[in-house]
Amino acid sequence: MRGYAPASPDNKYPHRYLTMPTFKAPVRDINFVLNDVLNVGQLAEFERYADATPDIVEGVVDEAAKLIENQIAPLNQAGDTVGAQFKDGHVEMVDGFKEAFQAYAENGWMGLSADPEYGGQGLPFVLSKAVEDMLCAGNVAFALYPGLTQGCYEGLEANASDEIKATYLEKLANGEWAGTMCMTEPQAGSDVGAVKTKAEPQDDGSYLLNGGKIFISSGQHEMTPNIVHFVLARLPDSPPGVKGLTTFVVPRKLVNADGSVGDDNGVSCVSIEEKMGLHGSCTCTMQYDNARGWMVGKPNQGIQSMFVMMNKARIMVGMQGLGQCELATQTAIRYAQDRVQGKPLTGGDDVPIIAHPDVRRMLLTMKAITEGARVMAYETSLYEDISVASPDEAQREAASDWVELGTPLTKAFCTDAAVELGSLAIQVYGGHGYIKEHGVEQILRDSKILCLYEGTNGIQAMDLVRRKIKMKGGALPQRFFDKVEAELETYAGDAPEVADALRTALAALKDGTAWLQQQLKDDPDAAGAGAVPYQRAFALTWLGMNWLRMAAKAKVLPDDAFKQGKLATAKFFAAAILPEVGSLCSSIQRNASLTMDLPAEAFLAA
Amino acid sequence: MRGYAPASPDNKYPHRYLTMPTFKAPVRDINFVLNDVLNVGQLAEFERYADATPDIVEGVVDEAAKLIENQIAPLNQAGDTVGAQFKDGHVEMVDGFKEAFQAYAENGWMGLSADPEYGGQGLPFVLSKAVEDMLCAGNVAFALYPGLTQGCYEGLEANASDEIKATYLEKLANGEWAGTMCMTEPQAGSDVGAVKTKAEPQDDGSYLLNGGKIFISSGQHEMTPNIVHFVLARLPDSPPGVKGLTTFVVPRKLVNADGSVGDDNGVSCVSIEEKMGLHGSCTCTMQYDNARGWMVGKPNQGIQSMFVMMNKARIMVGMQGLGQCELATQTAIRYAQDRVQGKPLTGGDDVPIIAHPDVRRMLLTMKAITEGARVMAYETSLYEDISVASPDEAQREAASDWVELGTPLTKAFCTDAAVELGSLAIQVYGGHGYIKEHGVEQILRDSKILCLYEGTNGIQAMDLVRRKIKMKGGALPQRFFDKVEAELETYAGDAPEVADALRTALAALKDGTAWLQQQLKDDPDAAGAGAVPYQRAFALTWLGMNWLRMAAKAKVLPDDAFKQGKLATAKFFAAAILPEVGSLCSSIQRNASLTMDLPAEAFLAA
Repeated sequence: MRGYAPASPDNKYPHRYLTMPTFKAPVRDINFVLNDVLNVGQLAEFERYADATPDIVEGVVDEAAKLIENQIAPLNQAGDTVGAQFKDGHVEMVDGFKEAFQAYAENGWMGLSADPEYGGQGLPFVLSKAVEDMLCAGNVAFALYPGLTQGCYEGLEANASDEIKATYLEKLANGEWAGTMCMTEPQAGSDVGAVKTKAEPQDDGSYLLNGGKIFISSGQHEMTPNIVHFVLARLPDSPPGVKGLTTFVVPRKLVNADGSVGDDNGVSCVSIEEKMGLHGSCTCTMQYDNARGWMVGKPNQGIQSMFVMMNKARIMVGMQGLGQCELATQTAIRYAQDRVQGKPLTGGDDVPIIAHPDVRRMLLTMKAITEGARVMAYETSLYEDISVASPDEAQREAASDWVELGTPLTKAFCTDAAVELGSLAIQVYGGHGYIKEHGVEQILRDSKILCLYEGTNGIQAMDLVRRKIKMKGGALPQRFFDKVEAELETYAGDAPEVADALRTALAALKDGTAWLQQQLKDDPDAAGAGAVPYQRAFALTWLGMNWLRMAAKAKVLPDDAFKQGKLATAKFFAAAILPEVGSLCSSIQRNASLTMDLPAEAFLAA
Repeated sequence: MRGYAPASPDNKYPHRYLTMPTFKAPVRDINFVLNDVLNVGQLAEFERYADATPDIVEGVVDEAAKLIENQIAPLNQAGDTVGAQFKDGHVEMVDGFKEAFQAYAENGWMGLSADPEYGGQGLPFVLSKAVEDMLCAGNVAFALYPGLTQGCYEGLEANASDEIKATYLEKLANGEWAGTMCMTEPQAGSDVGAVKTKAEPQDDGSYLLNGGKIFISSGQHEMTPNIVHFVLARLPDSPPGVKGLTTFVVPRKLVNADGSVGDDNGVSCVSIEEKMGLHGSCTCTMQYDNARGWMVGKPNQGIQSMFVMMNKARIMVGMQGLGQCELATQTAIRYAQDRVQGKPLTGGDDVPIIAHPDVRRMLLTMKAITEGARVMAYETSLYEDISVASPDEAQREAASDWVELGTPLTKAFCTDAAVELGSLAIQVYGGHGYIKEHGVEQILRDSKILCLYEGTNGIQAMDLVRRKIKMKGGALPQRFFDKVEAELETYAGDAPEVADALRTALAALKDGTAWLQQQLKDDPDAAGAGAVPYQRAFALTWLGMNWLRMAAKAKVLPDDAFKQGKLATAKFFAAAILPEVGSLCSSIQRNASLTMDLPAEAFLAA
């Protein structure tokens, strides 16, 4: 709906100017990133991905875009205003979610990158992430249901016995059943080692689980006849902390020998949370009362099993952030193109607000962050594919290092950006942005959780600084620096302003990295204090490389609006945003030592 | 409520760790800013404020703190969850709001700085702002009802005839009646000149108003027997744009000759908005059907009348932002002191999260911004007092210049900061912060409107750049630069690290100011594109001066937690935040010219 509502007695909102966001999947940009910038066609050279030719890739993106635009995105606002509801011990979905979930499953989207042995399509992970990017832009709350199902699939595929795989994987890959990941407990949030849920071994090789979990997304619903829970628990007499955790598969309903759905298991949802946003996704408090489970992986090795799944789940959350960035950006641009208000600073008649320089500054910032982050998220996912599909061991190892590095960066940067861009989108709307009816404030509310779950963005920064830049003698950041230098070598001539800014940023990042690596030995708290600003500096430098490559690749395109957009935004990013890297890297070196000085009780003084 | 909820069948949230924010007014910091940093005792030297001695000031702050802590802040969460509701053409308040409004009015808080001739207390404006700081921290949605009443009072006091003043001012000053400010229409948001509401002159000297307004805070309620609307409208045959606006007073109910409340006037509330937050404050769509009004000020001079009121309203919104910064900061600190999670990076047992360096970085950022912004907001308000009360014309003019400069800075910086700190407070809470029950996500939702109303923060930046740094040949920023240099001269020795960082920031700000002043002549769009980052740079420099003064004044205090907090936070601000000024001022010079390049239609390209 768009335009002035008529002033009539029947109209609840006389004189109101209304525009509702209509999501259009950014198909052209996705194809540009996949093909022109990252050349995902290279994957077709590996036997595993021989089918992933450029025409197949484009076809997949087009088809997914249609389903998401036509059936899933239109449910986004009802997901927020109605929300999942808890009634009589059951979680009720918003109308249309069940049909959308089934359509998504039946068309093979859930198992796009799952193993063909278990009914998956066997296509590259990066392609499934491109689809997820669109899905999370169209309806991020909905996206959690397939997302957690994929997460559960990945956890079982990597760790479970053949028997468990045979029982569950195909049904998860084809979306016949849904899945969850159950980690958090009240005392065990960021500190997962504090998990208390108990698993008692039984004579038949199964376990009985007792305890409770909180914040379990998709924990209960009636969209599928069964739900498969991947649960972190503790065996009797296990060592304390993370070294005493074990993972289990616990179905909502027991599975009969023939694979059909049997009796209730002792898994129940006690309540769902009232949240700031993401209302379409149920966040469940779960209770296990002698719930029967089966061990996945080895005893007391649960943290390793979780990490396989969690790393992919972190990339998934990064895609959720990226999707919300896209939604914020395109929604704000359309409003600004449409809304007439005010005269140009240089004089003349009233104009659409996109003519005002401060509005343009906001929109260019949004575009620069969204499109730049898309390359980072997709590149991390592409390396995941290379790390499993390349026949060359050195290439696999290098790719795996990139995934290790890119995972916390993608998770934290894309989600922080979603909040920032959600706030900017409201700002572009002015006072109208604060009104629920316009649908834009939902973006900020939906996005804030992304900075918190699957490890807060502070936890991501600790992972980046305390593990990733330290492991293998600093090889991971060194690979990144080498790559940036190689790309500068290749493309500097195509976009000299971007290249200059990138060189400056890279020098600052190297300096900051060396300083942090030293602090990890000398003063771990100083490294901890610098971790979040450093994480942003690292991600911005990556985006700088992305804008250099995008500018170079866009330069050879035929002249059109898409090309103009890339070239202008690259320059804007280099001038307005990338220089922040220097300021961040020098500030962490100045302030880290000051962070620990003030006694805890002196923060609030009467 | 604080601590683990027991796991019982009755408990909706088993195992849940709960802490609810309990607001404590920052009385010590407020007194420190008023007395030690700003020496508001100087006002007692002026005849008008002879009563405002330090003991009176402290007494006022103490008494207001009690009322707010005990009666008003406890309504904050119900204000959000229940909210003002529109039923059968009437707006229903949340339980307790009416009694709180009456208590606030009866104790004289509404008229604290109003003219004693009209029943006010005649105390300094800055003192009323200190009370407003606490009120907006305790319950910002509630604060709008007295706030708009004061705004209406100010608009009438500055512009209305003696007859109108006699009719309305005392009842507004003592809170017997409430007031509003009615400007926005659907097509007239940032562009106030597009107002269409018509006022037809009548034979008896009154006018009949017809039209509609949107986004009218406190537009209708039953807390008072009458509501006084200060309305922007257009006379027949008035010139187009802002030069054809006239202001009117339009009571909800006509006032009888004896001052009592008479018949209904044609003013009605058609609906209230469903908003992102601030639910305790009703945001009304108003309709005037032959509503009778009386002209305030002169025909077609409405924009001048509005500006008197609007400037004070902008400072009020700045106080709302400051209050929410305070609430975010103290709420996050208490949670971090209380919540045990994770081991120190340097080893050892589980600790409260305030021991973790990244949590400390967030809390120090919050503290540095909140306490630094408090001085800026109070100093602007103090200058308002000097500008009206000083017997010395030059001093009055200088003070008035400071108010002109400080108004957009206080409004924009404090409100942007409220959103930033609201988001950080959630981040400190982790996943729990996303749950409504904890009460912390409300801060972010309540705060976002502050960046939008009374002129978006982009509009504030245009005011700063296109008017304030240009008027009087640049005298306003020059006064600021001179003041910073004088304070450096006086206090540099007390806090050399802060002084060094401030000198660097000042040099960058001067440079950015000169560049913008030049662009206003050469390239207005470039100035427009740089306005928002410049606004932040300017405010941060002001905060730098504030932290220099606070560090110096704290140094001579007896050793205690308050002093430790000031000294450590000053150093943190200087090292971690103030250097951003340089980065902002250089980025605006690099990117401004790029902002206008991309054609409007190329922002989204298929």
